[in-house]
This record gives sequence, structure tokens and C-alpha cells, in this order.
Amino acid sequence: MSRFEESVIEGRNEVIEAFRSGKTVDRLFILDGSNDGPVQTIKREAKKHDLRIDYVDRKRLDEISVTGKHQGVIAYIAAYKYAELEDIFSNAGKKGEDPFIFILDNIVDPHNLGAIIRTANMSGAHGVIIPKNRAVGLTAAVAKASAGAINYTPVVKVTNLRNTIEALKERGLWFACADMEGECLFDRDLTGPIGIVIGSEGEGVGRLIKETCDFKVAIPTCGDIDSLNASVAAGVMAFEVVRQRRNGK
Amino acid sequence: MSRFEESVIEGRNEVIEAFRSGKTVDRLFILDGSNDGPVQTIKREAKKHDLRIDYVDRKRLDEISVTGKHQGVIAYIAAYKYAELEDIFSNAGKKGEDPFIFILDNIVDPHNLGAIIRTANMSGAHGVIIPKNRAVGLTAAVAKASAGAINYTPVVKVTNLRNTIEALKERGLWFACADMEGECLFDRDLTGPIGIVIGSEGEGVGRLIKETCDFKVAIPTCGDIDSLNASVAAGVMAFEVVRQRRNGK
Repeated sequence: MSRFEESVIEGRNEVIEAFRSGKTVDRLFILDGSNDGPVQTIKREAKKHDLRIDYVDRKRLDEISVTGKHQGVIAYIAAYKYAELEDIFSNAGKKGEDPFIFILDNIVDPHNLGAIIRTANMSGAHGVIIPKNRAVGLTAAVAKASAGAINYTPVVKVTNLRNTIEALKERGLWFACADMEGECLFDRDLTGPIGIVIGSEGEGVGRLIKETCDFKVAIPTCGDIDSLNASVAAGVMAFEVVRQRRNGK
Repeated sequence: MSRFEESVIEGRNEVIEAFRSGKTVDRLFILDGSNDGPVQTIKREAKKHDLRIDYVDRKRLDEISVTGKHQGVIAYIAAYKYAELEDIFSNAGKKGEDPFIFILDNIVDPHNLGAIIRTANMSGAHGVIIPKNRAVGLTAAVAKASAGAINYTPVVKVTNLRNTIEALKERGLWFACADMEGECLFDRDLTGPIGIVIGSEGEGVGRLIKETCDFKVAIPTCGDIDSLNASVAAGVMAFEVVRQRRNGK
């Protein structure tokens, strides 16, 4: 199920992270004359990998840039490799922890996908599962919003989310679906092997997938507007799992 | 809160007019070395409003300019009207709740500011306080990212965050500063009147402001990268306050 994509990495930290996590950089563009600390780090990494640097002017960088936020550094990466389901289990196994997974049902905004991967990493989740169709993939914008987390946290792309959830249930995971009509998040036991299912901002989690989950949980909101940002909601849920694993239900 | 006109004002007379008509200028850019009569008038107005001036070169002004006719002066005007501190207290009073406030120390990304206002609204916080200088103001991008919350949740702009925190402490609030070296968020009693202080993604909360707070709290992260997104961190903190107010410490 792995897939390769041509990718552009933009921004100093993102490029440094790409080197450090062992990605293959095919081409490296640096703003001519730029020589501050992070850029020097990038130059050292390039030398280490026998990589020629293309020094270009700002106009050229702006042309290459996809996000418009290159900070004077752009790298072409051979690929973001999608992980396999087994990578998630081996990630949990290595840490001696119960699996903790995010399942994203049609998150289409790259900033949200990136931010959720970042949150998954920082909350100690073992992986993120996204569907093959309709959802956004691992683009440069996602990588940037993930602040480098995309290099560490396995992201698995599957053909059918529902079948995947069924298969993971057989391996002992419980699935909590984020749903406004669910039980209060804080009243539910979220310890043990768990998958948190988050839907798109507009539509929430699809009906069939919702029915496949074991239970529904809601963040107790009390505002004047409709909903939390999807990546904020994912963060609140992620760290309620962390809290319960740490301090008990 | 009534809506003001958008948002970038260019040209000497236009900027003078914006000041004189009582618009809130969030940021002011002046061509470095420029000092003729109208520019001196603008500088006096800025001083009167305690507004820091960014002196920049022509290239930078040309980049910022939308009309291409900046005449060496560009001002960003607040798209929304700022609230007063008392609006926050009356908001809490009407609900019969202990005040619950966010203080943002130099959040510069409009998406983050908007998302935090959105989160503040949905978590039942009574207001958001931002500093006058350096931080992003209530621009159209912020309004959009707030998903409408900007119309409901009071946002107050103050000259000196530290003085404001001191004044609010005298009115019974406790201040928790988000800081990586703080005590675990989940172990701290966050019930009662509280202000949560969040810093910028790069730098965190400034030292003087940190010292003014009553205690420091950290979200217990365990990832491979540096930090959570600032708006995600604010969301996790907001709903830990909600959880404790609801279920007890």
C-alpha cells in the first residue's frame, strides 16, 4: 500500500528535519548569500550527503515555491512514503504501549491534516490512517503544517476505512468516533488500545464509518458558533487519551 | 461588536485620515528616513496611540502594498472593533461564572489567533487579551479563521500585558503560563478565576510575563519534534479547564 509522491519541502526547519530523518534530498535550492545558523546546518547536511546546492535568487525561489513560505530554502524530496499498518503496530510494540491511532475521515484541508499529524506525534499516538480517495495526501503543505512530524509518525493510506476499522477491531482496538451527539469525552474510558475517528469540518464522520465505531464521544463545547477547528478537536481528544493513560480515568 | 472597514490603508493623507476618524491602527509601516510634514503628523498620531512604528525600506513597502501607491506609508487597520476589559467581566458575570481568560503573548500568525478566538468561544472562555505591539491584530484573515467567533468573544488589546496581568490578579484571577518546563497541566488545579497565558510558537511566553504569572503548566508531550501548534496547545489547555470545572480537579 505504499506510494511515492514527488514532493517539495520548503522552509528551514522542514528541510533540516527531512535530512535528519533520513529522507533522500534530490535537489536543494538556497537563497544566494543566505548564511545564518539554520542555513549553515543545511549546508553541512548537504555536504554530508554529497549533494550539490543550487544557489538562486529570490525570484527563482518564489517561482519554485508551492506554499509561498520557503524562507530561502527549498528541497526536492524523492518521496513521502506512506507507511503500512504493521509500522503502526511495531511503533506501539517498540514503546511497549497499547496502540493509539488516529483515523481521519476525509480531512481535505492540508493545514488540518498537517496539524493533526503534528499532534499525533506529540501526543505519542503511533500512527495516522487516511483514506485513499477524496482526502488530501501528503503534500508539501501538509509536511510544512506537520512541522516535521510527517517524518516520524507513520501515515497509512487505505482503500476502505470501514474495512480497516473492522480489521483493527479484531486486533483488539476500540474505536471512538468524534460526534457532537456522543457521550462527553471526559466521562468515557479511553485507556486501552484505541482509535480516535475524526471527520471533516463540514460533514463530520460519515454515517457508515460512525456505525462501525464502538462508541461516540463529544467535546463539551458551549459557544456561539458551530464547531471547533478539526485539528484543535483532534488535539483535545489526543490529550484526553494522554491524561487518562497517565492519571487514570 | 460592529464590523469596521477592511484593512490596508496606503498613502499619507489616507493614513492621517484613518487616525483622525478614530480607526484602530494595528501596525504602521513608514519608509526609513522619511520625515516630511505629513509623515511627522503620522508619527505624532502614532505616539499619541502608543503605537510602535516599523521603519522599513522601499522594497519591503512595495511588497506590502496592494495599490502600489503607498507614498512611503502603509497602515493596517483593525477589521473588527476591540472590546474593553470590563466586557470580559460582564460576560462572565452574566453567565454567573468565574472569569476564564486567554492572554496571548505575541501570536503573530493570523490563523493561530483566529483559531484561538474560536477555541475560546467554544470552551466558554469569557475573553481574549492581546498586546498592542508586535502581535497580529483583528484582520480579515483572523476573522475568517475564527469562524465567526470574533463576533461573540471579546478581544481586548492592551498596551502592557504585564500591567494587565497584575491588575487582573488584584481582581482575583490566577495566571497559568504555558511553559515547557512547567508542572504537568493535568496535575494542577485550574478551577476558579483563571487566565491562561500562551506564547508565540517560536519563542513561547516572554520572560517578564512568565515571571508575573502565578504558576507554569506544561502539556505532557512525548514526540520527536519541538512543539504543538499554538492553537492546538491553547485548545488542550482550554478544555482541561472545562474538564476540571465540570468534573472537578
